[in-house]
Amino acid sequence: MLLAQVKRTIHQYRLLEKADRLLVAVSGGPDSVALLHILRLLQEELKISLSVAHLDHMLRSNSHQDKEFVEKLCSRLGLGLTAGCVNLRQLAKKGSLEEAARNVRLDFLFRTAKQVRANKIALGHTLDDQAETVLMRLIRGSGLSGLCGILPKREFRGYQLIRPLIECKRSDVEAFLKQKGIRALKDPTNQEDLFLRNRIRHYLLPLLENKYNPKIKEVLSGTAQSLSLDYDYLHQVAQRIKNRLRPSLNTPQLLKMHPAIRRLILRLRIVDLQGNTRRINLQHIREIEDLLLNRPLHSVVDLPKGIRVSKKKNCLVFTRRKIYKRLIS
Amino acid sequence: MLLAQVKRTIHQYRLLEKADRLLVAVSGGPDSVALLHILRLLQEELKISLSVAHLDHMLRSNSHQDKEFVEKLCSRLGLGLTAGCVNLRQLAKKGSLEEAARNVRLDFLFRTAKQVRANKIALGHTLDDQAETVLMRLIRGSGLSGLCGILPKREFRGYQLIRPLIECKRSDVEAFLKQKGIRALKDPTNQEDLFLRNRIRHYLLPLLENKYNPKIKEVLSGTAQSLSLDYDYLHQVAQRIKNRLRPSLNTPQLLKMHPAIRRLILRLRIVDLQGNTRRINLQHIREIEDLLLNRPLHSVVDLPKGIRVSKKKNCLVFTRRKIYKRLIS
Repeated sequence: MLLAQVKRTIHQYRLLEKADRLLVAVSGGPDSVALLHILRLLQEELKISLSVAHLDHMLRSNSHQDKEFVEKLCSRLGLGLTAGCVNLRQLAKKGSLEEAARNVRLDFLFRTAKQVRANKIALGHTLDDQAETVLMRLIRGSGLSGLCGILPKREFRGYQLIRPLIECKRSDVEAFLKQKGIRALKDPTNQEDLFLRNRIRHYLLPLLENKYNPKIKEVLSGTAQSLSLDYDYLHQVAQRIKNRLRPSLNTPQLLKMHPAIRRLILRLRIVDLQGNTRRINLQHIREIEDLLLNRPLHSVVDLPKGIRVSKKKNCLVFTRRKIYKRLIS
Repeated sequence: MLLAQVKRTIHQYRLLEKADRLLVAVSGGPDSVALLHILRLLQEELKISLSVAHLDHMLRSNSHQDKEFVEKLCSRLGLGLTAGCVNLRQLAKKGSLEEAARNVRLDFLFRTAKQVRANKIALGHTLDDQAETVLMRLIRGSGLSGLCGILPKREFRGYQLIRPLIECKRSDVEAFLKQKGIRALKDPTNQEDLFLRNRIRHYLLPLLENKYNPKIKEVLSGTAQSLSLDYDYLHQVAQRIKNRLRPSLNTPQLLKMHPAIRRLILRLRIVDLQGNTRRINLQHIREIEDLLLNRPLHSVVDLPKGIRVSKKKNCLVFTRRKIYKRLIS
């Protein structure tokens, strides 16, 4: 059942093509272990090559055992492993643990992909992660782009990140492992958004599932998927319009735009500066809009990560102070 | 505070203009009573005229007391009242109580608006109703159009329905009534979506507010508002494209469209037939899409309210069986 669902997802979102060289990120937890096994089962059929990356975050004294576990797994499956090691606590002193973990992990994956000449990177996110993400963003306050949740496929720094398990429930992943007699580590601590995500995972989602809709995870995933289509269309329109504008956005032009497109263009301008809109929520975009529509000339809006938007005569100027240096181990 | 917020909402969404003749729907509950008082306070400033409509659903033996309460209120405020009466239980035998109540209430309001020559109808929905609606739709499964929630302003059968309280919290409404010493009836039973909505109101929203985000209602309202902008843009595009198509939608044309626009055009085709997309959820739209993309010729999809979509050579044909006659008291 899990295998069939993964195949459907790969087919529907065109995650893999013949001759793809795929790097699979494996923590040793149930999701990534199941993902690796399934990809190994499909490898011949899909005509892809596989290798594995594992990063030791050194957050627990015995975390090196995770690495040994993944090493043994890879040697049993006959796959090459690249293991890395980072002292996350030390790194995180400069910012949040959550953000540090994310950046370090991604940097490690991209470096490894380059080393082993992979063109795609597979991550083990499941339908449960998707449902949690949608709820988390909804609770924190989000617009269309945030509610798209975790995308099945995403271009990032020249690589494709793919999530073949994104339509599989965690319970089906666990059933698969049990049925096949495959061992995995106990869910290694997920450092991202730890507090809120764990409460959603352990309290809110089970409550919604038991008392409101037994299919809540599938429903939230369907919503995210549908909103992604809407976002994709709007994004194309906004990108096309933005390409014709100057970097300092012309106020009269902004004022004439449909507000949906205007909000997206403001977001895209932030992406130009910081590479993403991480930590930019709906409230920030509304503040820039308020700057544009209602505040006097020379007002400024300060956003996270040192981004400043200034209202000048006839334009909005976006600048970024360097307050943050990305650290790679 | 409540007054200021209502003025901001009226201004932001351009709910009212000079010389508007406004019919206010008043059940006698806190929301509609506060709405009526506030509009009465603003009447001179806004230069509008006011009259009141009250419908007795006859669901409780003493429901005529509600009418008497509203009668007294109107006479104290010096406003004209049109009261109607309908035996909802009898009507509802033919369908769901929820749907019957909604249709009968709207029919009554439109008839009354015509009688008293009003051009707009004001309803007492609050920020709390908005948050409940967004959660309800999210739980049942919804795409962009559903997650827009309750619109502050909507054209319907040639009238504008407006909701001046849509950005006011119910607790602020109650504080306003208390402070002004205004009496209202105990929240008369809201017959719409009773079961799920009441559980969301009394359990889920308070839980989210206490344990996840004290501003959850404002956040959900902000999301709905932002998604409404996105929907408005996509709707304009889809409407423009649909106007160039035949009523039986051409398959090759549908296949070439961006899926976001295609989904909206399918929705708009249903609106052509039944006047709205009530009871059509995301799952239905995905089924029509599956019909289009994957199922053999001459397959059909049956939707609620007797709507059938048939896959013919080169087109999708939408038809509607008459299974439901609207009853007006």
